[in-house]
Amino acid sequence: MEKLVERIKTHGNVLGEGVLKVDQFLTHQVDYELMKEIGAVFAERFQGSGITKVVTIEASGIAPALYTAEQLQVPMIFARKAKSLTMDEELLTASVYSFTKQVTSQVSISKKFLSSEDTVLIIDDFLANGQAAKGLIELCQQAGANVVGIGIVIEKSFQSGRQLLEEMGIPVVSLARIASLSEGQVSFLEGDA
Amino acid sequence: MEKLVERIKTHGNVLGEGVLKVDQFLTHQVDYELMKEIGAVFAERFQGSGITKVVTIEASGIAPALYTAEQLQVPMIFARKAKSLTMDEELLTASVYSFTKQVTSQVSISKKFLSSEDTVLIIDDFLANGQAAKGLIELCQQAGANVVGIGIVIEKSFQSGRQLLEEMGIPVVSLARIASLSEGQVSFLEGDA
Repeated sequence: MEKLVERIKTHGNVLGEGVLKVDQFLTHQVDYELMKEIGAVFAERFQGSGITKVVTIEASGIAPALYTAEQLQVPMIFARKAKSLTMDEELLTASVYSFTKQVTSQVSISKKFLSSEDTVLIIDDFLANGQAAKGLIELCQQAGANVVGIGIVIEKSFQSGRQLLEEMGIPVVSLARIASLSEGQVSFLEGDA
Repeated sequence: MEKLVERIKTHGNVLGEGVLKVDQFLTHQVDYELMKEIGAVFAERFQGSGITKVVTIEASGIAPALYTAEQLQVPMIFARKAKSLTMDEELLTASVYSFTKQVTSQVSISKKFLSSEDTVLIIDDFLANGQAAKGLIELCQQAGANVVGIGIVIEKSFQSGRQLLEEMGIPVVSLARIASLSEGQVSFLEGDA
């Protein structure tokens, strides 16, 4: 997605250790216009798949997932990273290891919002090692729901996430694919959309 | 906002201790259509105030804040609850005490996204004791930004949040005002919009 790639070139910041900061438009300050276009692209790519729910994880996935859900005219669910006081009922739960933070955390979705009747599109802001996405897939599978694909805003193609997800049989659509972040420079592969 | 009140009556669940769960449309599963209408109402109420940024806090404030920002055609910023690895630069930081969780946490926004040039509308999903909103106001004030108002989706009017914010001189617009949550029943005051 050319507009996204241009935005990363203009406003992305490469920090050490392969970290790309895009807090000017995605992970902190949010550009609704760009998010809306991203939602439209995901919806178009997965159109006709019979999607009934868009699933993401708090917090940076919410904006692109919401506009995707709007385009597809289905509800969006954001998985929670920790059990909250008001989530008393039965939960679908999966463990997610963060290589960045070097901690394992739980992600969860209330059982009542996903069932074997559901066809799910997962949306997330970043794909690196694929652990968060894998956790979301596991939540859907626990519910018996069918995951038709994963839409990723920014893929770090030099990490193993895409391979992991493809080996699980889940199609991945990434709007920007980053080949490397070395020496403070972002270089791109061709995106999927 | 009648549609919101009806939705709370139909899908809100009163748990013990004055807790209202609205995870069917706002805090976990999100109804984009309702959020969009909420955004339109907030934008209309604060139209002409010269708003340059909509500010909220992760995660449940993001959906209503995003649609408000879209309507006002300005960026949305979501404050982070913990310092993240990729937020290395200088931060505006405030402490927020949660009466529900009985812990004090930090909220922060990068200095680069708020300045004395900004006129801010704060949006949040709930107003109870007003501590989260107060923290967001403090972040804006640290940046020298002007806060023109606070838009709240659901106000627990039996708690002191509104009074606290009004004493700070900040107009509060709440779309649903809850008079009480006793005996598993939700009773409402007249909303502001």
